[in-house]
Amino acid sequence: MKRTAREIADYAAGELRGDGTITLTSVASLKNAGAGDLSYAEEKFHDQVKTCAAGCVFVRSGEFPGKTVVVVKNPKVAFARAAAWLLAADVDQAGIHPSAVVAPDASIGNNVKIGAGAVIEAGAQVGDSTVVEAGCYIGQNTRIGSRSVLYPRVVLYAGVEVGNGVIIHSGAVIGADGFGFVRDGDHYVKFPQIGGVIIEDDVEIGANTCIDRGSLETTIIRRGAKIDNLVQVAHNVEIGEHTVIASQTGISGSSTIGANAVIGGQVGIGEHARLDNNTIIGGQGGVLNDKRVRGGVVLWGTPVRPVKEVLEQQAALARLPRLLREIAELKRKILGEK
Amino acid sequence: MKRTAREIADYAAGELRGDGTITLTSVASLKNAGAGDLSYAEEKFHDQVKTCAAGCVFVRSGEFPGKTVVVVKNPKVAFARAAAWLLAADVDQAGIHPSAVVAPDASIGNNVKIGAGAVIEAGAQVGDSTVVEAGCYIGQNTRIGSRSVLYPRVVLYAGVEVGNGVIIHSGAVIGADGFGFVRDGDHYVKFPQIGGVIIEDDVEIGANTCIDRGSLETTIIRRGAKIDNLVQVAHNVEIGEHTVIASQTGISGSSTIGANAVIGGQVGIGEHARLDNNTIIGGQGGVLNDKRVRGGVVLWGTPVRPVKEVLEQQAALARLPRLLREIAELKRKILGEK
Amino acid sequence: MKRTAREIADYAAGELRGDGTITLTSVASLKNAGAGDLSYAEEKFHDQVKTCAAGCVFVRSGEFPGKTVVVVKNPKVAFARAAAWLLAADVDQAGIHPSAVVAPDASIGNNVKIGAGAVIEAGAQVGDSTVVEAGCYIGQNTRIGSRSVLYPRVVLYAGVEVGNGVIIHSGAVIGADGFGFVRDGDHYVKFPQIGGVIIEDDVEIGANTCIDRGSLETTIIRRGAKIDNLVQVAHNVEIGEHTVIASQTGISGSSTIGANAVIGGQVGIGEHARLDNNTIIGGQGGVLNDKRVRGGVVLWGTPVRPVKEVLEQQAALARLPRLLREIAELKRKILGEK
Repeated sequence: MKRTAREIADYAAGELRGDGTITLTSVASLKNAGAGDLSYAEEKFHDQVKTCAAGCVFVRSGEFPGKTVVVVKNPKVAFARAAAWLLAADVDQAGIHPSAVVAPDASIGNNVKIGAGAVIEAGAQVGDSTVVEAGCYIGQNTRIGSRSVLYPRVVLYAGVEVGNGVIIHSGAVIGADGFGFVRDGDHYVKFPQIGGVIIEDDVEIGANTCIDRGSLETTIIRRGAKIDNLVQVAHNVEIGEHTVIASQTGISGSSTIGANAVIGGQVGIGEHARLDNNTIIGGQGGVLNDKRVRGGVVLWGTPVRPVKEVLEQQAALARLPRLLREIAELKRKILGEK
Repeated sequence: MKRTAREIADYAAGELRGDGTITLTSVASLKNAGAGDLSYAEEKFHDQVKTCAAGCVFVRSGEFPGKTVVVVKNPKVAFARAAAWLLAADVDQAGIHPSAVVAPDASIGNNVKIGAGAVIEAGAQVGDSTVVEAGCYIGQNTRIGSRSVLYPRVVLYAGVEVGNGVIIHSGAVIGADGFGFVRDGDHYVKFPQIGGVIIEDDVEIGANTCIDRGSLETTIIRRGAKIDNLVQVAHNVEIGEHTVIASQTGISGSSTIGANAVIGGQVGIGEHARLDNNTIIGGQGGVLNDKRVRGGVVLWGTPVRPVKEVLEQQAALARLPRLLREIAELKRKILGEK
Repeated sequence: MKRTAREIADYAAGELRGDGTITLTSVASLKNAGAGDLSYAEEKFHDQVKTCAAGCVFVRSGEFPGKTVVVVKNPKVAFARAAAWLLAADVDQAGIHPSAVVAPDASIGNNVKIGAGAVIEAGAQVGDSTVVEAGCYIGQNTRIGSRSVLYPRVVLYAGVEVGNGVIIHSGAVIGADGFGFVRDGDHYVKFPQIGGVIIEDDVEIGANTCIDRGSLETTIIRRGAKIDNLVQVAHNVEIGEHTVIASQTGISGSSTIGANAVIGGQVGIGEHARLDNNTIIGGQGGVLNDKRVRGGVVLWGTPVRPVKEVLEQQAALARLPRLLREIAELKRKILGEK
């Protein structure tokens, strides 16, 4: 797409300073930007605005003679929004690739792209303007809303429900059986895994992430949640609205995470844990089974505790080897031990 | 499928109490069950049996006038078994999808389903009543037994052997090269990774899990082992019968785990470690290279040690910052230090 | 392929002792080797050379009457190199499978194999003698060099660049969006993820590993780096030449790792960290955001510190519970506390 600086300023409800007729075709960092690029600058980088080659820059304030800028309250947010608008691809390859295998009774909306080799099973529904890229597998009786994008080789098992504006990256597997077995004498019997998965609107799911179906209940990812690559979400888990989960974190069965939580990378959360809204856990933290975790405090370590405590304990531990030597010395002095 | 309560009771070798003619078509939790659902109740939930809507409920004992129940020793096991029986899908779509690519000399058993776009390479064997779902890649000279299910987009590299009744979830990669290199001056040379992988009967392997082929030996997953999603099993590893491994655990090269072990999520096991039968390791635990680990004790932490020790040490560590202050005080008092 | 012992000796620039006419067709460990196998022995296993059945064995020195050996400085390196040479498959199935979907303007080199169901999008370039196995997805305007191998079901997003002699295992996803969002009031806005990925020559990437594209910059994997399965490499990361990264490690956004580093399994590296050349980190180690890590010392723990310190602290911690009891005793004695 092409947009003028004037159109960008209008879209961002910002104040244009400079030449509104400049045409922008892409976005870039201040450092890399060229004449056709939109960029942004935090205040500490305002110096670089003067020397950069960007066609137009979002800034918070200031005068930049000879440059075209748009003044907005939050330049990074404005940039992110305007970039999405500027770069928005039309679903220009809408249509079903001849090599795709679409069940006769699947329901395919308007302006949908189904890529090469994709498989759409019986009873599946794909909403308007959704993109199902090459090699995706869309199981029986799944439902995908409108304006969603499934990158190549996503798998949705039967019955999975995906909302509107959802992005799912390659290799993600949604709706595989949860890991549930009952010990029977010398071996295990599989416990039924026949529950559902609901992915609400505006969720993003990273590459090779796994979200298992419920056993007898439903696994739910609430509106606006963002999940990174290689994350494990077990059966019956519920993840709250606008919660962010970084790469390689694992959430065990039947745990719930509230809204607006921020979970770092490689965090492990046990079974039946309950994390409040606004829970914040640093990388590699661990939550034990059945724990209730309070929100609003930065937590770290295994088991998670306030980061201040962890750092205090780590500092103390670093002094411990020396302390042990001092104590031995002390004992000798006091008690006359040798 | 449909089964009557009488048939369910007979299958479970339980005692029917109530109306044996009730027809059951699915299973559900007590809470969610409707008239056509089979359910089960642990004793503490017997109260709910009276008020639930389930058509039939496995219980351990008791009278439930007006309800149909089946009395068995272990309701959860009976439920899991009966559910599998009740829900067993016939391989009703048996046959090779026209878009599948099957080598002329591959051997395909009776009542097999090969899904859309699946690729079966030369010399591969697929046993009776096995399902190879859409987009699976079955390499040269692989062997898959009977009644196994490979969900969409599983990859078996050349020469992998899979037994009977095995379930492999989407995105799992079995038989990729192990991670073996030899340093030669300023760079690495790949060490040959030409060993095999054997997956024995009744194993289940989770989504996006990786099981590497042996370098010069064989990687083996023994009968009845259950492996969750996103697990890494390196070259030459052996995992014992009926061992359970939770999500995101990694097992380094040439390590062995005995039978009936229970390994939690995100556990890391070094190279050439040897874990006995009945090893139990809690989530995020770590086993160092070359270690021998004894079974029968719950282990935790990195390096793993009995959980009782870990908890004692954690409690002591929590007291350490205060202790340091007390010691300083003590030294001042005793030694007259300032 | 077939090679005689004489040819193997010449290839390895070693000294042949024994029968140079022996024909070798494969490789194996000393223990498993048969008459047609090439093997190798470290000096401590020289005894086994005499009794093994291998057709030819690399050794460092010694006489083995009746056996055919090749004397070289480093038998393991020589074996690895010769094995690659001996086992080198010709791209014997070169050609484009009729079920592959190749864009008319994609550029496909000589002697290339494109497997069944692979998708090559518009503007993609595939170099000579490269193998793109079944079901791979090669996005728009990607570039793959010569002699590279992409195993089944690899995904390259648009614009990814892959060098010569690169190996990428099944399920790897290269170029998915980095995990970048800007909070805007009660929800997140996606930050543009439009940077590139460059994979230089001779890199190997494991199964189901994810390497995200840069946000506005480029993610770079330098020449000769080796990355194991299920590894996460976030946006804007740079990994140095001949660096080795074991399974399930995660590297957060904008971090850099120098050359010749060795990173263990399940290591977590925060954002904007800078790891020097020759950094060595043991399994499950953790590097905090923004940290600078020095090379040449074995590091472990979270946060990483010299392994000697970690072990000393662990030993001290193990003594801490008893120490606490002793201190209480000491206080009673000294201060007359009860």
